[in-house]
Amino acid sequence: MSQLSFEFPDGSVKQFDDGVTAQDIAKSIAVSLGKKSVAGKVDGQFVNNDEPLHKGGKIEIVTSDSDDGLSVLRATAAQILKMAIANDFDNINFGESAADEDGFFVDTDKPDTQISVDQLEDLSKSMHKIIKEDLPIKVVFLSTDEAKKVAGNDPYQSELVKENAVDGQVKFFEIGDFKSIAEGAVLPSTGKVKIFKLLSVAGAYWQGKSSNPMLQRIYATAFNKQKDLDADLEKRQEAHDRDHRVIGNQLDLFFVDPKVGAGLPYWMPNGATIRRTIERYIVDKEVANGYEHVYTPVLANLDLYKQSGHWAHYREDMFPPMDMGDGEMLELRPMNCPSHIQIYNHHIRSYRELPLRIAELGMMHRYEKSGALSGLQRVREMTLNDGHTFVALDQIQEEFKNILNLMVDVYHDFDINDYTFRLSYRDPQNTEKYFDDDEMWEKAQSMLKGAMDEMGLNYTEAEGEAAFYGPKLDVQTKTALGNEETLSTIQLDFMLPDRFDLHYVGEDGKQHRPVMIHRGLVSTMERFVAYLTEIYKGAFPTWLAPHQVKIIPVSQDKHGDYAKKINEQLRKLKIRSSVDSRGEKMGYLIRDAQTHKIPYTLVVGDEEVNDNSVSVRRYGEKNTESESLDSFVDEIQKDINSYSREDNK
Amino acid sequence: MSQLSFEFPDGSVKQFDDGVTAQDIAKSIAVSLGKKSVAGKVDGQFVNNDEPLHKGGKIEIVTSDSDDGLSVLRATAAQILKMAIANDFDNINFGESAADEDGFFVDTDKPDTQISVDQLEDLSKSMHKIIKEDLPIKVVFLSTDEAKKVAGNDPYQSELVKENAVDGQVKFFEIGDFKSIAEGAVLPSTGKVKIFKLLSVAGAYWQGKSSNPMLQRIYATAFNKQKDLDADLEKRQEAHDRDHRVIGNQLDLFFVDPKVGAGLPYWMPNGATIRRTIERYIVDKEVANGYEHVYTPVLANLDLYKQSGHWAHYREDMFPPMDMGDGEMLELRPMNCPSHIQIYNHHIRSYRELPLRIAELGMMHRYEKSGALSGLQRVREMTLNDGHTFVALDQIQEEFKNILNLMVDVYHDFDINDYTFRLSYRDPQNTEKYFDDDEMWEKAQSMLKGAMDEMGLNYTEAEGEAAFYGPKLDVQTKTALGNEETLSTIQLDFMLPDRFDLHYVGEDGKQHRPVMIHRGLVSTMERFVAYLTEIYKGAFPTWLAPHQVKIIPVSQDKHGDYAKKINEQLRKLKIRSSVDSRGEKMGYLIRDAQTHKIPYTLVVGDEEVNDNSVSVRRYGEKNTESESLDSFVDEIQKDINSYSREDNK
Repeated sequence: MSQLSFEFPDGSVKQFDDGVTAQDIAKSIAVSLGKKSVAGKVDGQFVNNDEPLHKGGKIEIVTSDSDDGLSVLRATAAQILKMAIANDFDNINFGESAADEDGFFVDTDKPDTQISVDQLEDLSKSMHKIIKEDLPIKVVFLSTDEAKKVAGNDPYQSELVKENAVDGQVKFFEIGDFKSIAEGAVLPSTGKVKIFKLLSVAGAYWQGKSSNPMLQRIYATAFNKQKDLDADLEKRQEAHDRDHRVIGNQLDLFFVDPKVGAGLPYWMPNGATIRRTIERYIVDKEVANGYEHVYTPVLANLDLYKQSGHWAHYREDMFPPMDMGDGEMLELRPMNCPSHIQIYNHHIRSYRELPLRIAELGMMHRYEKSGALSGLQRVREMTLNDGHTFVALDQIQEEFKNILNLMVDVYHDFDINDYTFRLSYRDPQNTEKYFDDDEMWEKAQSMLKGAMDEMGLNYTEAEGEAAFYGPKLDVQTKTALGNEETLSTIQLDFMLPDRFDLHYVGEDGKQHRPVMIHRGLVSTMERFVAYLTEIYKGAFPTWLAPHQVKIIPVSQDKHGDYAKKINEQLRKLKIRSSVDSRGEKMGYLIRDAQTHKIPYTLVVGDEEVNDNSVSVRRYGEKNTESESLDSFVDEIQKDINSYSREDNK
Repeated sequence: MSQLSFEFPDGSVKQFDDGVTAQDIAKSIAVSLGKKSVAGKVDGQFVNNDEPLHKGGKIEIVTSDSDDGLSVLRATAAQILKMAIANDFDNINFGESAADEDGFFVDTDKPDTQISVDQLEDLSKSMHKIIKEDLPIKVVFLSTDEAKKVAGNDPYQSELVKENAVDGQVKFFEIGDFKSIAEGAVLPSTGKVKIFKLLSVAGAYWQGKSSNPMLQRIYATAFNKQKDLDADLEKRQEAHDRDHRVIGNQLDLFFVDPKVGAGLPYWMPNGATIRRTIERYIVDKEVANGYEHVYTPVLANLDLYKQSGHWAHYREDMFPPMDMGDGEMLELRPMNCPSHIQIYNHHIRSYRELPLRIAELGMMHRYEKSGALSGLQRVREMTLNDGHTFVALDQIQEEFKNILNLMVDVYHDFDINDYTFRLSYRDPQNTEKYFDDDEMWEKAQSMLKGAMDEMGLNYTEAEGEAAFYGPKLDVQTKTALGNEETLSTIQLDFMLPDRFDLHYVGEDGKQHRPVMIHRGLVSTMERFVAYLTEIYKGAFPTWLAPHQVKIIPVSQDKHGDYAKKINEQLRKLKIRSSVDSRGEKMGYLIRDAQTHKIPYTLVVGDEEVNDNSVSVRRYGEKNTESESLDSFVDEIQKDINSYSREDNK
């Protein structure tokens, strides 16, 4: 019998007989490991625990309590789900299925009717039945012809047979008389899966391509312990409750309709109000801080992006150029920097004008893959709170501090507190990989560091993480869903001033090259509103809330006029107020205002009319409080003007 | 001898011998007409006064005092200019030349050096010499071969020879030994031109196509009387002084660089400030008047514009679609209406929501021909102050009044007073040419008229001027340069609600179709700023002025701090103020502030520092006035808040 050679994670190598199984190998190390092992991984590929191995390689033993162990459990559950579906539905086709650390899914396609979320409970029951029977799950290898017979008329399975065939053989899992193409490794019998949950159904393109048919994807998960499932479901619920797409729908903030354009959001009046408020805030803030705001076109001759280098290095993220007929090729801009360089270059600049700060709410277009698009978070058309500062080399430190101060000030107003700073330098071992100006790099890097130290800010340093054209600072934050995200960047750029041959006339009367600093304070309007929606969980502070005040008269007839009078007074002060004149029951109307997360609900009845007062219910509170109208007006104005922050009042 | 038959403008017909001249015919009518005639027009084509005619037709006698007479004078001057150029410059090529009621021009191209504006005076002198010689100008017909020889190496003339050849012959004018291809009719000798003026030189593409070489165009004019020339030059100066492109350059408002994109303006900080102020004003005004502002994408699937009908009827004004690869075709929108229909259709709408008013500062792209582009007035990327109201049929009159009231209110704030209203109806004789719903048309037209009458507004009515899809109101105004322009339109639309199958649920619980009203209050930001620049002649009222206050300290050392203190106080109030710290002579600095049309110049010296006061110089006034600082702050705030209108204060 021939021998196979396996290398373990610690580097040791052992020989085993051909046909050995992962479990045999685990046992050979320790009996306890043999008990805990649920599968193996040979050269990164999953194998079943009891599957005879005929090739050596790097081996890992997968135990039930590891992430890979959970994947194996879920891959098993996926097979059980498939079998249940095949039992319960005639004539159904299967797309892909997969299992990982987040859960598992199975894609199906039924030509006339689709599987709906209402049918998940029945499917769950069918799965439990299969689990109770504790059927063995075997690995079988079929010839391509046999495999095609199993796939039958299912177009997706037929295609997968072709893709998965190795040396004329396709690996299948077999449970009773149900066979399906193997994905990963599975446990030896259906009874090993005890705790699972079918979660939801959503459309998914066959193989992720939007030109392919849309299949139904059943999302699910499985665990070894009930308490792990419970914790996971709670986390999912929390994520769902904070998901800006869910809140965006509940509060009618925006929508995206892929039929009209994937990644192209429509901002409904509520979302537009939030965005407009942020835009005005940030423009005013920047103007007060010495920025010159401009408007520049979203289109430019393609030559501009050839000169900037975007066309050579960034083309796959750009939209296709438009041939205008007379030799002109127009391109939707992927970035605003070349436009701001046009503004800089429109005049001869003097050292007296530096730092010259050009800012814009600049619309850009980037071609994100349709699979990557998500609500307002990942879109194809976006408006960036963009700014470019042109400085002399020795002004970098001071200007960097100006930008940081402004940034921290803005974060504070939005109540953003959970962020970290990271400085990226060039790799000192590979300086030839970067823009060639040693003095500039050394000076710039030490000035960035100097500014951070002077301001007493904590930061990490990352050598070799800088872009080709200059060092940068990233401000990293975590979304409510736990994803790391870059909130802002301050990027130094030595290259574009060179490519566009930028100059300023120095005090010495000679021409000098400026350094360019790219900076965004709150990234794109789309991404920032998505982020704020998640951190506020939809309860926007008063200054941002699309509806700030809802006035509910106890009786339309008796108190309606008073409600209208208050409403008009507030609206004259540009407070976003309205009267709920639907005349439904008081309790319902107050609940409705809370559901829409309106900061102030005012109830007005006999007493309020007589006293010229209002009964105020603040969002999230259970009591109403009686106040004179004047004092309420004063309160809400302070609230708005302080960006709803006590420490700004 | 054969006879030719000529028909006169009054319809009478007379016979003349073959070879008769226009002047002969004029004399035959009246001796005085013979004396006044300078040329003829046969079937709309100019002929020289003494040119033998060999074909009859409709004839007009051109007299010297008519517009056509001026064109003949100017065509003659153009020939003299060409001859002068040919005399003065070796190796120069000629493009086209033309003469009309505005003046005349000659295009030239000299490979190495171009004719510059500095050379116009010398050219003028050379023309006077030719005029003094009173050389006869003859019509000669050359064979194509002879004509080609005359054109020689001149590529443009060679092409014109081909284009102008009729039956193998090309018509030339001959002055001495100078020959050039005939354009229009000319006077019999160079001495007939006395009063002319060479005006300017500018680039012009050969035959108006931007893919062709750029030639040098010399603009000029000629008159019969010196006083007419003087009046014309004064008018040109006035037009030049008001031209938003000239002022835009002087005040650094915007620029367009055809190399980066024709018709794609860059708004410099000054222009951007004006635009932003207008945008905020109009959005606030609309929100206060019940409009819901949204943001919708500039891109959409081409199918949207197929459904709306734009692709079928408006395609030549649209940008080319972008093929995204996976079957998706994206199109830059030419109009915002389909986007707002998406907003309407995102929810089921109830009669309670009507009139539903959707508004946006909506960016659009239209493919204007490069020859039609002009500054901010005619562009390819524009942002429209757009709005669409969805109403029930019986709400048209009331909503139309709401829109009109808002419009008149906005005009008042911008001090726009010179406008007229025009209602456009369908043609009652050809109702089948319009959207097919007689009741809707009748009702809608009478409601528009009813609203105008109720409001006591004057208007004209134009039957047959309505669009296919509904009646409209246009607000017409004249630009400072005398061109008629549409400032605003209120357009009813029965068709789009039909094409997009729009509904609302009526009080009866049934589905009804709304009517859509398209309306712009101040048209596009680009066109409106161009218009305002011209009517204000660059002296923007304080609330719009990019720089509102300039503070000049008498001595930097002694009064600089006080100037800074005032500046900070004003900037905290969001007043656009700055200190002129250049330290130049006082007179120069004050003049400079006036040149930049800054509403308030504050001079501060010893007295002002002691009194906590300012010396105020208002734009256009010659005196400065001493005021306490508080009273000035109060004054300028009132000025801004009232949109600089006395009657708003």
